[in-house]
Amino acid sequence: MTQRLDDTDCTSDDDASECAKLQGPGYLRYGDDRLREECGVFGIFGHPDAAALTALGLHALQHRGQEACGIVSYDGQQFNSERRMGLVGDHFSRANVIERLKGHIAIGHVRYSTCGDPVIRNVQPLFADISTGGFAVAHNGNLTNAVTLRQELISSGAIYQSTSDTEVILHLLSRSKKNRVVERFVDAIRQIEGAYALVSLTNEMLIGARDPIGIRPLVIGRLGSAYVLASETCALDIVGAEFVREVDNGEVVVITENGLESHRPFPIRPARPCVFEYIYFARPDSVIGGRTVYDIRKQMGVQLAQESPADVDVIVPIPDSGVPAAIGFSQESGVPFELGIIRNHYVGRTFIAPEQRIRDLGVKLKHSANASIIRGKRIVLVDDSVVRGTTSKKIAKLMYESGAREVHMRISSPPITHPDYYGIDTPDSTSLLAATMDLEGMREFLGVDSLAFLSVDGIYRAVGFEGRDPRSPQFTDHCFTGEYPTPLTDQSGVAIPRQLSWLAEVG
Amino acid sequence: MTQRLDDTDCTSDDDASECAKLQGPGYLRYGDDRLREECGVFGIFGHPDAAALTALGLHALQHRGQEACGIVSYDGQQFNSERRMGLVGDHFSRANVIERLKGHIAIGHVRYSTCGDPVIRNVQPLFADISTGGFAVAHNGNLTNAVTLRQELISSGAIYQSTSDTEVILHLLSRSKKNRVVERFVDAIRQIEGAYALVSLTNEMLIGARDPIGIRPLVIGRLGSAYVLASETCALDIVGAEFVREVDNGEVVVITENGLESHRPFPIRPARPCVFEYIYFARPDSVIGGRTVYDIRKQMGVQLAQESPADVDVIVPIPDSGVPAAIGFSQESGVPFELGIIRNHYVGRTFIAPEQRIRDLGVKLKHSANASIIRGKRIVLVDDSVVRGTTSKKIAKLMYESGAREVHMRISSPPITHPDYYGIDTPDSTSLLAATMDLEGMREFLGVDSLAFLSVDGIYRAVGFEGRDPRSPQFTDHCFTGEYPTPLTDQSGVAIPRQLSWLAEVG
Amino acid sequence: MTQRLDDTDCTSDDDASECAKLQGPGYLRYGDDRLREECGVFGIFGHPDAAALTALGLHALQHRGQEACGIVSYDGQQFNSERRMGLVGDHFSRANVIERLKGHIAIGHVRYSTCGDPVIRNVQPLFADISTGGFAVAHNGNLTNAVTLRQELISSGAIYQSTSDTEVILHLLSRSKKNRVVERFVDAIRQIEGAYALVSLTNEMLIGARDPIGIRPLVIGRLGSAYVLASETCALDIVGAEFVREVDNGEVVVITENGLESHRPFPIRPARPCVFEYIYFARPDSVIGGRTVYDIRKQMGVQLAQESPADVDVIVPIPDSGVPAAIGFSQESGVPFELGIIRNHYVGRTFIAPEQRIRDLGVKLKHSANASIIRGKRIVLVDDSVVRGTTSKKIAKLMYESGAREVHMRISSPPITHPDYYGIDTPDSTSLLAATMDLEGMREFLGVDSLAFLSVDGIYRAVGFEGRDPRSPQFTDHCFTGEYPTPLTDQSGVAIPRQLSWLAEVG
Amino acid sequence: MTQRLDDTDCTSDDDASECAKLQGPGYLRYGDDRLREECGVFGIFGHPDAAALTALGLHALQHRGQEACGIVSYDGQQFNSERRMGLVGDHFSRANVIERLKGHIAIGHVRYSTCGDPVIRNVQPLFADISTGGFAVAHNGNLTNAVTLRQELISSGAIYQSTSDTEVILHLLSRSKKNRVVERFVDAIRQIEGAYALVSLTNEMLIGARDPIGIRPLVIGRLGSAYVLASETCALDIVGAEFVREVDNGEVVVITENGLESHRPFPIRPARPCVFEYIYFARPDSVIGGRTVYDIRKQMGVQLAQESPADVDVIVPIPDSGVPAAIGFSQESGVPFELGIIRNHYVGRTFIAPEQRIRDLGVKLKHSANASIIRGKRIVLVDDSVVRGTTSKKIAKLMYESGAREVHMRISSPPITHPDYYGIDTPDSTSLLAATMDLEGMREFLGVDSLAFLSVDGIYRAVGFEGRDPRSPQFTDHCFTGEYPTPLTDQSGVAIPRQLSWLAEVG
Repeated sequence: MTQRLDDTDCTSDDDASECAKLQGPGYLRYGDDRLREECGVFGIFGHPDAAALTALGLHALQHRGQEACGIVSYDGQQFNSERRMGLVGDHFSRANVIERLKGHIAIGHVRYSTCGDPVIRNVQPLFADISTGGFAVAHNGNLTNAVTLRQELISSGAIYQSTSDTEVILHLLSRSKKNRVVERFVDAIRQIEGAYALVSLTNEMLIGARDPIGIRPLVIGRLGSAYVLASETCALDIVGAEFVREVDNGEVVVITENGLESHRPFPIRPARPCVFEYIYFARPDSVIGGRTVYDIRKQMGVQLAQESPADVDVIVPIPDSGVPAAIGFSQESGVPFELGIIRNHYVGRTFIAPEQRIRDLGVKLKHSANASIIRGKRIVLVDDSVVRGTTSKKIAKLMYESGAREVHMRISSPPITHPDYYGIDTPDSTSLLAATMDLEGMREFLGVDSLAFLSVDGIYRAVGFEGRDPRSPQFTDHCFTGEYPTPLTDQSGVAIPRQLSWLAEVG
Repeated sequence: MTQRLDDTDCTSDDDASECAKLQGPGYLRYGDDRLREECGVFGIFGHPDAAALTALGLHALQHRGQEACGIVSYDGQQFNSERRMGLVGDHFSRANVIERLKGHIAIGHVRYSTCGDPVIRNVQPLFADISTGGFAVAHNGNLTNAVTLRQELISSGAIYQSTSDTEVILHLLSRSKKNRVVERFVDAIRQIEGAYALVSLTNEMLIGARDPIGIRPLVIGRLGSAYVLASETCALDIVGAEFVREVDNGEVVVITENGLESHRPFPIRPARPCVFEYIYFARPDSVIGGRTVYDIRKQMGVQLAQESPADVDVIVPIPDSGVPAAIGFSQESGVPFELGIIRNHYVGRTFIAPEQRIRDLGVKLKHSANASIIRGKRIVLVDDSVVRGTTSKKIAKLMYESGAREVHMRISSPPITHPDYYGIDTPDSTSLLAATMDLEGMREFLGVDSLAFLSVDGIYRAVGFEGRDPRSPQFTDHCFTGEYPTPLTDQSGVAIPRQLSWLAEVG
Repeated sequence: MTQRLDDTDCTSDDDASECAKLQGPGYLRYGDDRLREECGVFGIFGHPDAAALTALGLHALQHRGQEACGIVSYDGQQFNSERRMGLVGDHFSRANVIERLKGHIAIGHVRYSTCGDPVIRNVQPLFADISTGGFAVAHNGNLTNAVTLRQELISSGAIYQSTSDTEVILHLLSRSKKNRVVERFVDAIRQIEGAYALVSLTNEMLIGARDPIGIRPLVIGRLGSAYVLASETCALDIVGAEFVREVDNGEVVVITENGLESHRPFPIRPARPCVFEYIYFARPDSVIGGRTVYDIRKQMGVQLAQESPADVDVIVPIPDSGVPAAIGFSQESGVPFELGIIRNHYVGRTFIAPEQRIRDLGVKLKHSANASIIRGKRIVLVDDSVVRGTTSKKIAKLMYESGAREVHMRISSPPITHPDYYGIDTPDSTSLLAATMDLEGMREFLGVDSLAFLSVDGIYRAVGFEGRDPRSPQFTDHCFTGEYPTPLTDQSGVAIPRQLSWLAEVG
Repeated sequence: MTQRLDDTDCTSDDDASECAKLQGPGYLRYGDDRLREECGVFGIFGHPDAAALTALGLHALQHRGQEACGIVSYDGQQFNSERRMGLVGDHFSRANVIERLKGHIAIGHVRYSTCGDPVIRNVQPLFADISTGGFAVAHNGNLTNAVTLRQELISSGAIYQSTSDTEVILHLLSRSKKNRVVERFVDAIRQIEGAYALVSLTNEMLIGARDPIGIRPLVIGRLGSAYVLASETCALDIVGAEFVREVDNGEVVVITENGLESHRPFPIRPARPCVFEYIYFARPDSVIGGRTVYDIRKQMGVQLAQESPADVDVIVPIPDSGVPAAIGFSQESGVPFELGIIRNHYVGRTFIAPEQRIRDLGVKLKHSANASIIRGKRIVLVDDSVVRGTTSKKIAKLMYESGAREVHMRISSPPITHPDYYGIDTPDSTSLLAATMDLEGMREFLGVDSLAFLSVDGIYRAVGFEGRDPRSPQFTDHCFTGEYPTPLTDQSGVAIPRQLSWLAEVG
């Protein structure tokens, strides 16, 4: 399952050149997708193997980000940091690395995979020596006023070490007039806007926090006497920790030797978690609200079968993201579920066909057709979403070439019409298929016999609501509805210089 | 899908120490599993992008071997070789590598993944300068008299450059008294015994060959005016080549500028392809005998449901290998198919938990339970085979811990009671679960409520026969039956020194 | 010629374990030698190959620092940075690196070689985005109030990206209330104390500056219409630039499209350049005051022969640092000059004998005796300085073992009795041989027949003065005299926390 | 001191493009300089730290070859091999490498530095499993009938693993009909022609051998009860071994647990060691015939001053190779010796100026002028040899540009008029300056006021003879005289195919 909300990546054939363009000079500017990442966070307090357990937790969260990973621990004397490009298992499985990360407290971060050439100074956790001591932070989400705050801070003499939106938190903390770290931390997060699930580390505490409406997820677990914070429950499972509860929206939890203490620095508001965690991001075995995400996704397939049935011979998922909904669709419709498309799991992000001649052959590096299932059949293709539509179009074509008599596409979420600003890397509106075409236009573009999306209410029903409450929507769902739940300060500030750093540096 | 016929690998927790042992000194001795590999081969004659297409073909065959890969091309002047440890996409996707592999003829090889520390001199294709010119060979299979021949050759002055069984072919060829290369090649393969699908390259021809009973697969394709040879049809599909036919058992095909010429240097015998290609090795979308392998595996699940039904609530595959049979089992039994186990695709072969303390927690790096599906249910677990049984046992335990009421294990192939000597890396008999226990013993060891394997005849029926013909079995199936189809010369020679090389060299 | 003012390094046998200790955790704390480095700087304005010429200039300055190197250029759009551990020629000779460093302005830095494990964030040039735009700085020297300033800056919210003393300049600049960059720069350097030769880069200018008494060197050159700044004239020579003049002590030169403009922000004082540039650091072909450094060093040997003659058969330099003085000594005394000690130029800093057993054999990795020259002779050994004395002692022993009848040691500089705080990595007083023993004690420790140092006045005479002017010494010579020319603020502040960063990070 | 008999290398400016050409495809063909290398060998029998001492010995012999190095040890069970591109200190100083090379017997090899892209399969020691067990060999020299023998061996079925001339020894040994290894070894070396100093290793012995006239050097040492073999005495010194004697020309020494046993398989002939060891290759502190090489080279300078005096102000060596002769010239003539040219020791072989524009500036990466010494002076430049003359020409020009009034070049060896075929990498005759011009032509080409070479008899006198004995010359001196001391079989065989391997492989 890819975590990037996009149906195109560098391994698909005709996007190779686009990637090459993006990889160019190796620097980051505002406007690049890469500044706004989907990520995973983990933290643990009070365990002798804090760093090793953090590595395991990050491994379980690897689907949330494959570009880079990092861990910071505190050992009673100093903070220890390791930040690397690539997968957790490639860097943090060796004993010598883990041994450098001594201590009973640790936090970690995984970052998502782009085609670009990112730099190590943007890899989290970020760290600062401030007057109260060392402070490290790992962030999942995106701040919508980070550029505005950055300009103000630089004007008054701050020097940034990265182009990450997260760094603003360190500067606000460092400049706070408060004495205690927790007070400084609250001071800082009161000034930021947008989506955040944060885990932070000092020499004596682990801090967790979610933004006022809880857009990005964060859960609390216990492992013996130790406390764990993680983006998803699957990271508790891998270390054998017991699920305690979610961190509430707008809550700050401070874990010290005296246990967990909860702060509520914001006015109480209803929670509005991001609906894409259910549709797309969370791992199928993670539990939200007592149900596994797999179960919810299957239910989306059930809803979809009810809303938009099709008279076909076989239900085929687009692997791997469409599998749970396809199973639900199959069970509800009684039409057999079959693996009509086989995915090559050895496709990394670097396989680029070297010769135009070859790419013109229509080479399929990632997906291939299972001819016995497809030939002569009427099929429903099930996927969880459509972003640009380029991959869906290619797969539909592959189905017809493999002998399908009819191809009906069913998407287990509504059309994506608006970009995200809260940590999901969506293309801008002009590249979002559903932002530029109506349903019939999309059907024609994709070249299928019929096309249907799950309704917005259908999503809410699959999760267990009766439907969307328009006065107080239960989810952050602006990608489908255009209703953004927070101010978008950076988007409105026309006068803001867009260049975050004048420095290009590799490595 | 793992290609190694084993249910244990270095990523599972309690095998880490075993791997560490194997990795030791970095050399290969007879008796190590590593000398007898499952592999994939590819060759192409007559295309300006020969090496690039070979890289794509190897990528499609990557499931047959992830340890190492290599390509040799001939450009009219010289042979060009690149051999690397690791995946095809990691090494052969860069233009500068492909550009070094100039020419219109190329062959390639992928080798399977072990925990050991292999050496580049064993990576194929192997090459020799012989008096008729350069000669390269890539081999899938295993020769059962390679050690015996090696001893004879060394006694008469041959110097080996590798510890690969394949090298014997080069020496036999080089010492042949025949004048023409094809005659020398036939001279050589008449002296070898065992299983082989070979693709070879000279400065003017591409040669393909299968052993007299066709144990390992090899197919012929056409891409415009070019000829392609490959282990499976999925490698034809990726380059857009058209399937022509299989190379027959005992056939040698010689492809030159004048087209394809067929030789039959052996007495005609019935074919006996290895049954494990159907059960385990081939990619689901590859076609054998007009049907996709997925279809055949699903049918094994259907047979299994008929032979050994179970009164349960849900059918759960052990991912990814058990999925097709589980779908068949579900369709035949009418019990719902559900993904009750989630697999982490980011597990590489190097993730070893660093601390005993952590491994004792029972960390699950690779598989996790989908609790909503399992809790309170009676389940059938479907897998395609059981080798040592250690992973199956752990998964069964995970199911009970996740709340399963009953766990019934169904295996879509018969018990493996005998080791292989034809290119499949099986543990020796003492480690094969079914070689040491009866059915009830295995059930108890695995800790499940019931256990059933598909019958030997069931396998034959799933492929389309009425059953196994005991006078002339249609498959090489000795792992289930103990009937080896060829002499095992090296196994019988008690006097043979077991040390293939006295040299330990890294890199 | 080693640039570190020490006669021990990691390649000499019995210091290996000391190095191992230093290499430990990979972080830097105040008190480690590594914070106070000898370095080289280079800058160029107005040439299309600015970065390539900077790489050449740094190569010529490589003797001033081998640990790390970096270049920052500005290309009209953005700043481009490459910073690496290791030698210039290993990193900046490849076209693809130089091509990334586009632009007509560039500055660069080389840093000296330690045994420790430094981190890339400390490699210069350092860069900051400040409100007036990007600003990069490269620094040779050491600030004596950097820790004090750092504490104040962190207390008011500054976040450091390195543990380098140089970074304080960026923060002072960023926080300055002045509008123009040059004013901010002057504002910043007025607050710092100690030794500095700085080259800085903005989007429109190259800035050079020397501290008020000009402890560290900086020269101006012209290459066609381009301006060059460099630590020594040898860096002008390599790029074919013409020497213009030295930057004066306390001068700030600002080079823009309009040419060079000079600022004098400090009260006028007499210059006091560091005497060690003459004795030790500068390359022999560099020119100071119209004479090559080789010539001056030879003259030190002449003075030494006059002050402390010896009745011997042969003059032997300790290579390579003792060669010029030995030639002078030989010419003045009429005793033949011979290479009695051969140096192995392939000794890198990593060759550590692996076994105690071997090290006990007294292995000589670096120096060996030329027996024909030594055997039966009375010799004078000439070196330029003695720091700890450990290497000198070993070489003297080697001479006796090779058959020398008498060994007389002559040092072409005075005894080093006080540590440096201006950019030279001296051990603390307890490790300085001359700080702990008198002349006879040292002679006994070194195990030689006689020992003599050049007098302080002798040094001044070799350079061309009549002697040292005690009321206004012409050089910074505190290592010999104890007279430090500036306040040592950080040394006096007993209350200052010594830990610069709590963060340990590798890479 | 460079060991390649050439005055050009890749670091000099205008040869960069030539190197780029050579680096091209990464394969070796007959006719390339790279097949015929100058090298160093080392072996030790009977010491628990055999590999570590071999690494030290190779380090002392590093001047004989910087391209690659390797060590093979035998530990009682198996042979252990490590072969690497690059310097000994970069690869064999780490404990983990040495620990893999267990055992009490070891041999090693260093290979010289070219600009090309060599392959690991050519790095020595070469190893073969033959019927008597493992056998490893390291070779300094060059065989003049290796190509002829290779053709014969391949015709009868031998398969080569390298393109090294040395491998022929392994095949002859492997095919010998003798029973004992020593007999096979003698059998083999009786068939080879040319120059060789060999050290070989089996599971129970160390073998050393020199060709019938002893062209390449080999000495015997003792370290306690252990025996050592090495190319030069400096490798005995570094491990603390005592010099015993040279291996005689035509002698085979076999060292086992029973001590050293000497064989003389060839008719007795007078020795004719290569004169270039004295002039060029051996390290200055190595001892030949009781005198250090430094001493002999100084004497060449003395002879040269007597033969070709010059009325000048200063004697300037071309560093480092010209230093000893310049000291001798200075002492004999009474004219002062001065370092008028400074060499940059940080020039590796990879520094290539990236832009034609820059190279046109006449950048000097390696040598710079010491202006104080040169300006207004009449100088003698002393070097040990002239090959192509390109570097000498540049340095002469540099002297004039630095103000020299007169430049007189004095070469401390005779003109090189003939190429070598015994292990010295000379260019072919058309590139040898002295093969294409007379003395006046050369003077003009080099652009100097006068030019003189040492006479052939002068060389002999410097070593201690009265002159060359024309009936039985004491040295192999064909480069000066054209008298080759052995048949040159491969040179005469016009029918021999020149392509040693059709395989191009990188790495």
